[in-house]
Amino acid sequence: MQILVDSARRRQSVLVAGLDPIPDRLPPAVLEAGLSEVRATEAFCRGILVAIEPYVAAVKLQAAYFERLGPAGMQVYAELIEQADALGLPVIADVKRGDIGPVAAAYAEAHLAVYGAACVTVNPYMGNDAVLPFLEQTRLLNRGGGVFSLVATSNPSAGELQNLGEPPLYEAAARLVRDAGGGDGEYPDAGAVVGVTHPKVGRRVRELLPDALFLAPGYGAQGGGAEGVRSLLDARGAGVLVNSSRGILYAHEDSGLDYREAARQAARSAREELRGIGARM
Amino acid sequence: MQILVDSARRRQSVLVAGLDPIPDRLPPAVLEAGLSEVRATEAFCRGILVAIEPYVAAVKLQAAYFERLGPAGMQVYAELIEQADALGLPVIADVKRGDIGPVAAAYAEAHLAVYGAACVTVNPYMGNDAVLPFLEQTRLLNRGGGVFSLVATSNPSAGELQNLGEPPLYEAAARLVRDAGGGDGEYPDAGAVVGVTHPKVGRRVRELLPDALFLAPGYGAQGGGAEGVRSLLDARGAGVLVNSSRGILYAHEDSGLDYREAARQAARSAREELRGIGARM
Repeated sequence: MQILVDSARRRQSVLVAGLDPIPDRLPPAVLEAGLSEVRATEAFCRGILVAIEPYVAAVKLQAAYFERLGPAGMQVYAELIEQADALGLPVIADVKRGDIGPVAAAYAEAHLAVYGAACVTVNPYMGNDAVLPFLEQTRLLNRGGGVFSLVATSNPSAGELQNLGEPPLYEAAARLVRDAGGGDGEYPDAGAVVGVTHPKVGRRVRELLPDALFLAPGYGAQGGGAEGVRSLLDARGAGVLVNSSRGILYAHEDSGLDYREAARQAARSAREELRGIGARM
Repeated sequence: MQILVDSARRRQSVLVAGLDPIPDRLPPAVLEAGLSEVRATEAFCRGILVAIEPYVAAVKLQAAYFERLGPAGMQVYAELIEQADALGLPVIADVKRGDIGPVAAAYAEAHLAVYGAACVTVNPYMGNDAVLPFLEQTRLLNRGGGVFSLVATSNPSAGELQNLGEPPLYEAAARLVRDAGGGDGEYPDAGAVVGVTHPKVGRRVRELLPDALFLAPGYGAQGGGAEGVRSLLDARGAGVLVNSSRGILYAHEDSGLDYREAARQAARSAREELRGIGARM
């Protein structure tokens, strides 16, 4: 995780910008240029990367939106990871893969080695078999990357499974993260995805994982706010990277500005907001 | 799910062949032809598809092995789905995606509409938000496809999360499948992935889902046998498709036969074994 920590400190930002290029929300300037959907997605994402680079610790690429564009979409995914690298922005591949053993190893190789993301998100439903192969790959590559395992997510139906049991399932998922983590960075290489939308759950997960790095979705567009972020901070007021996707990407929809300028302003103010809350790295 | 049921009856087979082209297990005849890894994978899978076609209800493509070959690998994945279609073999895209809302919808569009698989596997850790968009896509396409949601998997660490709680988590996952299913086929369009490796768990899941179609991994190479399969059968002795991957694909390693002939024989005998157990459609 050190690559994320170093980038966050360099830019004084705990903000992660999520690249979710939703097809029917691409800005008019891009849609009207007569490009194919693949090329329009590429142009949009490239514009966003350059615009937000000074204000974000990392970018999170949502693989689904590239996957739905077929093999050409995966080529764009590859090139955006390259571009982010060239800008000094670490990439979190938001793939949430959840398979086991050699299959998990193949996914890990795909996203971390072939496509070259620094970090990846994974789904722990199948247990440790689904998480360890990703950690092995990051350790092999030794670039300061890491693996964020879903623990307590921010979506409306998250609790249907995650809150079941006593203690609830998310506690077991947190323990799996604790036991899996290693490496020689300031944070263990196994981190957790914990939404900012349920502060009580967030505080409990932080108790169980006092030393882990969290990737926190749900800020802004999904309704999470300052209290949700604070609930996740570690004893030093650090340890949390906060993701915002739609609030940055589609800021032009409200402002009428060029999408790049709107995204830049949105990223800058989200960074300041998070500093105001006291979140730092 | 009707497309799977019809194919199983036509071929008198409840066997699903899993296409897991593990790079260092490709047969010598393919490896020595001097092809690139992408082309070798393609040649191997194409050979297998033709060889096993008469004996299997469907093929299950393990997306990870194509993903690790980059965009060119996804092109092969697309072409194999086309070839299977041309052979009248329904494809289950084993993607185990587990994301929510518009992201899940993008994955569903990718694998069911763009790549054109009939069925897909999904991961329910995030709750219904992660399952329903896939069902919506299959209903929209209306080709008799369906969605297999992970319930109780066959891997060694499966129980780390799935067995927690009282009642255990896998029961909640089964209820999610029950509540999500619909459509006008003989089986609901929401099915379950239930391993053959834990018969007691299998019987319980069958109690909760008396009418659902199960996709059952763990047969053969993973140690599951006749008792495991029987535990999953519905009241009519039907309702289960049994997956075998390595036992078919890599049959040449033990037999010394051409890989196609070895796979064909392995598929034929697995089909007969399953008929012997009393599993039918």
